[in-house]
Amino acid sequence: MKRLLFLYLLLLAPLAKGDDGYQLWLKYDRISNASLRTSYTRSMQFIATEGSSPILNTATDELRQGLKGLLGQSIPSVKASGNRTGGILLRVTPMGADVKDLTPEGYRIVKRQDNLQIISQTDAGVLYGVFALLRQLQMNRPLDSLAVVSRPKVKFRMLNHWDNPNATIERGYAGESMWKWYELPETISPRYRDYARANASIGINGTVLNNVNASPRLLTGEYLKKVAALADVLRPYGIKVYLSVNFAAPKILGGLKTSDPLDPQVRQWWFNKVKEIYQTIPDFGGFLVKANSEGEPGPQDYDRTHADGANMLDEAMKTYPGVVIWRAFVYKADPNADRFKAAFEEFVPFDGKFGSKVIVQVKNGPIDFQPREPFSPIFGRMPRTPLGMEFQLTQEYLGFATHLVYEAPLFKECLDADTYVSGKGSTVAKVIDGSLHGYERTLMAGVANTGSDRNWTGHPLAQANWYAFGRLAWDHSLTSEQIAEEWIRMSLTREPKAVRRIRHMLLRSRDIYVNYNAPMGLSRPWAGVHFAPEPWQNKSPRPDWTAVYYHRADSIGLGFNRTATGSNALSQYHPEVQKGWADAETCPLPYLLWFHHVPWDKPLSSGRNLWDELCTHFYTGADSVQWLQREWAQVKPAVDPVLHADVAGRLRTQYEEAIWWRDAWVLYLQEYAQRPIPAPFQKPKRTLVDVKESVNVYLLR
Amino acid sequence: MKRLLFLYLLLLAPLAKGDDGYQLWLKYDRISNASLRTSYTRSMQFIATEGSSPILNTATDELRQGLKGLLGQSIPSVKASGNRTGGILLRVTPMGADVKDLTPEGYRIVKRQDNLQIISQTDAGVLYGVFALLRQLQMNRPLDSLAVVSRPKVKFRMLNHWDNPNATIERGYAGESMWKWYELPETISPRYRDYARANASIGINGTVLNNVNASPRLLTGEYLKKVAALADVLRPYGIKVYLSVNFAAPKILGGLKTSDPLDPQVRQWWFNKVKEIYQTIPDFGGFLVKANSEGEPGPQDYDRTHADGANMLDEAMKTYPGVVIWRAFVYKADPNADRFKAAFEEFVPFDGKFGSKVIVQVKNGPIDFQPREPFSPIFGRMPRTPLGMEFQLTQEYLGFATHLVYEAPLFKECLDADTYVSGKGSTVAKVIDGSLHGYERTLMAGVANTGSDRNWTGHPLAQANWYAFGRLAWDHSLTSEQIAEEWIRMSLTREPKAVRRIRHMLLRSRDIYVNYNAPMGLSRPWAGVHFAPEPWQNKSPRPDWTAVYYHRADSIGLGFNRTATGSNALSQYHPEVQKGWADAETCPLPYLLWFHHVPWDKPLSSGRNLWDELCTHFYTGADSVQWLQREWAQVKPAVDPVLHADVAGRLRTQYEEAIWWRDAWVLYLQEYAQRPIPAPFQKPKRTLVDVKESVNVYLLR
Repeated sequence: MKRLLFLYLLLLAPLAKGDDGYQLWLKYDRISNASLRTSYTRSMQFIATEGSSPILNTATDELRQGLKGLLGQSIPSVKASGNRTGGILLRVTPMGADVKDLTPEGYRIVKRQDNLQIISQTDAGVLYGVFALLRQLQMNRPLDSLAVVSRPKVKFRMLNHWDNPNATIERGYAGESMWKWYELPETISPRYRDYARANASIGINGTVLNNVNASPRLLTGEYLKKVAALADVLRPYGIKVYLSVNFAAPKILGGLKTSDPLDPQVRQWWFNKVKEIYQTIPDFGGFLVKANSEGEPGPQDYDRTHADGANMLDEAMKTYPGVVIWRAFVYKADPNADRFKAAFEEFVPFDGKFGSKVIVQVKNGPIDFQPREPFSPIFGRMPRTPLGMEFQLTQEYLGFATHLVYEAPLFKECLDADTYVSGKGSTVAKVIDGSLHGYERTLMAGVANTGSDRNWTGHPLAQANWYAFGRLAWDHSLTSEQIAEEWIRMSLTREPKAVRRIRHMLLRSRDIYVNYNAPMGLSRPWAGVHFAPEPWQNKSPRPDWTAVYYHRADSIGLGFNRTATGSNALSQYHPEVQKGWADAETCPLPYLLWFHHVPWDKPLSSGRNLWDELCTHFYTGADSVQWLQREWAQVKPAVDPVLHADVAGRLRTQYEEAIWWRDAWVLYLQEYAQRPIPAPFQKPKRTLVDVKESVNVYLLR
Repeated sequence: MKRLLFLYLLLLAPLAKGDDGYQLWLKYDRISNASLRTSYTRSMQFIATEGSSPILNTATDELRQGLKGLLGQSIPSVKASGNRTGGILLRVTPMGADVKDLTPEGYRIVKRQDNLQIISQTDAGVLYGVFALLRQLQMNRPLDSLAVVSRPKVKFRMLNHWDNPNATIERGYAGESMWKWYELPETISPRYRDYARANASIGINGTVLNNVNASPRLLTGEYLKKVAALADVLRPYGIKVYLSVNFAAPKILGGLKTSDPLDPQVRQWWFNKVKEIYQTIPDFGGFLVKANSEGEPGPQDYDRTHADGANMLDEAMKTYPGVVIWRAFVYKADPNADRFKAAFEEFVPFDGKFGSKVIVQVKNGPIDFQPREPFSPIFGRMPRTPLGMEFQLTQEYLGFATHLVYEAPLFKECLDADTYVSGKGSTVAKVIDGSLHGYERTLMAGVANTGSDRNWTGHPLAQANWYAFGRLAWDHSLTSEQIAEEWIRMSLTREPKAVRRIRHMLLRSRDIYVNYNAPMGLSRPWAGVHFAPEPWQNKSPRPDWTAVYYHRADSIGLGFNRTATGSNALSQYHPEVQKGWADAETCPLPYLLWFHHVPWDKPLSSGRNLWDELCTHFYTGADSVQWLQREWAQVKPAVDPVLHADVAGRLRTQYEEAIWWRDAWVLYLQEYAQRPIPAPFQKPKRTLVDVKESVNVYLLR
């Protein structure tokens, strides 16, 4: 024994498994509150599923799996409850008192005859109800408050994947594409099903598999077999597949001389192709089209209109259930034009001219997913054309995978904006959900931030954006706070103080980013790489692909004059909206430079002049990242250590880059403003040349 | 109770976790043989590590972690054994009887004074010894046969990653790059360490992080910080980082007017750059250079030689420990030349002219990683220049991630080939391990098949190629069978019959692939995409980038005449080697068309004429994939179900594609041969036009 004194017994380091983020918000850790667990368990003695179908089986399996985790025991599944009580009943009933106030995918969770019933008109509705119940259990809601009725406000709730057949993702920052085209249809990655589960759990019911800059490959018989294999995995989760199509496919694949949408042979080609698709995938969702935009082919190549193009596909789709989603993201390389106005000018004149299966998909703002944009003026201006919303989840302009930006406030800002087109309260949300103009086909699309990375989204906290998108597509009346709360408690921690801190971080994160990146209505300080600051960038084959086009800095001031004395893009809005933004004196500061060219020394409502106010944004924005770091440090005990270290690392990068952005902007603008950095801020430690050199690194091959 | 009769209690499907392949061959599942486990445990009561260092701590931790899994209990770790016995002792001793027959990284495992000792001259050697011991336990070797002495035959055993800063991998089929450049240096993915573990466990001690088509980014201060962060993770596993460098860096990064290797400013620039690198990464491994090859810059841009270029870097590296690895993979777009001869012609004349830190890295064959090539004639012909071997693990020409090709036989075929340069037995292996010409700097490099995919290599069985490469770089005398046996038992199953079947599959797989893809010395039936058959491809900016350049099919026959009546590339080999291949009558069939243009009706040693023999290869090759499928089906009970399903899916794809290759070849060649498909084979169900159309799908954007 004595010689043991000389031995230093080292403790075996615990092999902490660590949270690799793969489970997303579907963790189903056992509920730690024992009395709550007991009370749940007493009411969940069995799961009785009336009937059988792939989606109902999914619902049963998901409920079983979720309860097994949350309650820590296996709950038996039966075909019918008989007279038993104390269980969960899954019921599909097309008619009846319990469902007559529901829409098809809606559900009711209700206590009936001592059973908890999840009822819907459809199998999919039951599946959504199951996930809703599980969510409430994950949130530890008391048993007697589980009753709920819910209907989706939007019919088509879908992700758009900008994934290419070569597995790269345009604007993807979480690995490469999940779709293993070379391995399909024979090899089915388990990840496909996990992707479906995650989407179904937040109500997403459609997915566009491929990039809008569309390879024609996807429409070949070879690839349709692969698409069908994916559709087979997604179908039991109520998710339909859609494809982005290349408008020139009749020429490229069909060997025709033209892809003119009015050419009979072209129309026949699409007719045959649609028929072939439906023979392969009977519940195919439809097409998404980017036409005559950024070099993509389209009907204008043949002097036809967007309506001509969309209606050709509409006709080909006529006898099938699919829809035709036509993107309004178009603009021309005109140095004298204002890119802001292009989409409105090209689309609004065609209101009412689109076929009965067409939805026009509009990006939230008039430019391109900038950190902050006013809502697109198209919303509300095409009352006879169903308009879908296109949000971007992937952080193309929001710091890739190293900046924390919780996007729900960005989405809500747009959805809650008032278009005034039918009087006060005509919000964008009411345009999108069809209530304002009576659209039957309603759509919300999110450009996915998912990839092959183990944690799906690169930045672990960016999972919240996927989650928030799904929840808002289902119900845009949810608040950013509610969604954050749900996501944090299901994904990160249930410790109340930590939940509060992280929620606060998320809710402030987008404004922090805007402050150091593009405050006060600035936009697009990028050129080639949408990562590094390049506000000085003034060379490009297209003027609207430079940075100076957008901010218009000169010796007098800064900002893009879009009032009547400038491009007059403002006139595209309803007069009530114009009123809010037309006068530089009263225009809210977040949109000031979006609509006005403002002199550097102009005094603002904040009490500071423009230059000082700008500097205040850049500096406090960058400093706030340190606040994020401090808050994150505080929650360490409540969060998985591997995940915590990951986020902490990213916050360090974010801080470095926030300083980089701040320095780039203030040093560059100072050359025009010719003013000192106002106290108490310190002037940057580096020169503009230094910053440009560091940026140039990222422009090398 | 009665009503329970009406209930169908469904069994809860077991939530099979499934083997996602992430653990590779380091699974350390508990040894199922209880008596063996007991006997091991009795001799492994503690781990005593003499001394402390990052690598020794790694060795201790790895041993602890491995034993915990294998023995099912935690073994205490102590600083010294004192007088205790019955444990494992890790000892580093630079001198002494136990190590004097070792090289620095070699190790001895020996029973001494009732302890099992792992002894080496270096910390790294102890680490390798630990992994060797764990491997023996994983193999369930009896306790009394654990003693072993091992020395690496090659000094630099490294992976070459063809990874780009934008995260794509040139010729990568397992996701995107593991290196998250945008997140480094602040965020350290746990995967980096797991990568290091895997490599160290098979003796790999170096890694080139970036593509040989090198971005200059990696040499900027910004990226060197990121490289340093990776070096910090790899260092405790005895692995050094290397960088591929862009020869034009002095111009691109330094702003110089030239990158002429004889220009004093250019030399100074490299001198400063190397100094900067070593200030950041004190144990930096060195440079890898692809110069004047496939459009990359190099010394010939300034009328200088490869030696001039390499020696400039050699000089810059002089006072540092790093090496300069200069690739011999060069060829010119000369329609009248034979690409086969280019590297030899450009390099052999410079034998003895390279500086004291240079290693010339030569691909195994004279063309480019084809399914079967004769060894490069350079081996043996540069006795005064250390030559490194470059193998390709990633299956650029071996069916990407859907074809099963176990590459150890391919590597061995080259290593065991006899160059005859110093008489019989002058194998390529002896050139590479330095024993033939007394090289002190010896190198074996493998172009990595790893990516961000969860299972690292895409095809689960392709992990065997990573494993085999490491094992052969350490000891090229191991057989393909031994290595397969080890890998299977550690990675897939220990069930003896299944091991035997899978080993047989692996060992036959490369010949099966060659048979349907490029038999009898055919090569490079690819053009743009190295995936789909294109033997007809005859259009390219360079003749040597067409397919017809290589097979030379015409109405008379097939094959590339490289004898004295043709390009005479054969003359680059030693006369003894020439003898074996120069005569079409006696040339082994696997190399026949590599060296000879053979008439279609020429009778061969097999008793068939060329056309019939070719068809036999194509058809039996494709049919053999069905044999692979059947064998794999047989091992189902012994293999993890998720992994089994994954491989089964890939084998289905492989079969489809094998038929595709077969059909493409026979239908295309038939147009020249004008002969029927010989019995008992059936002619393809499709036409050549059909095949071309299906190939064209993969050429679309």
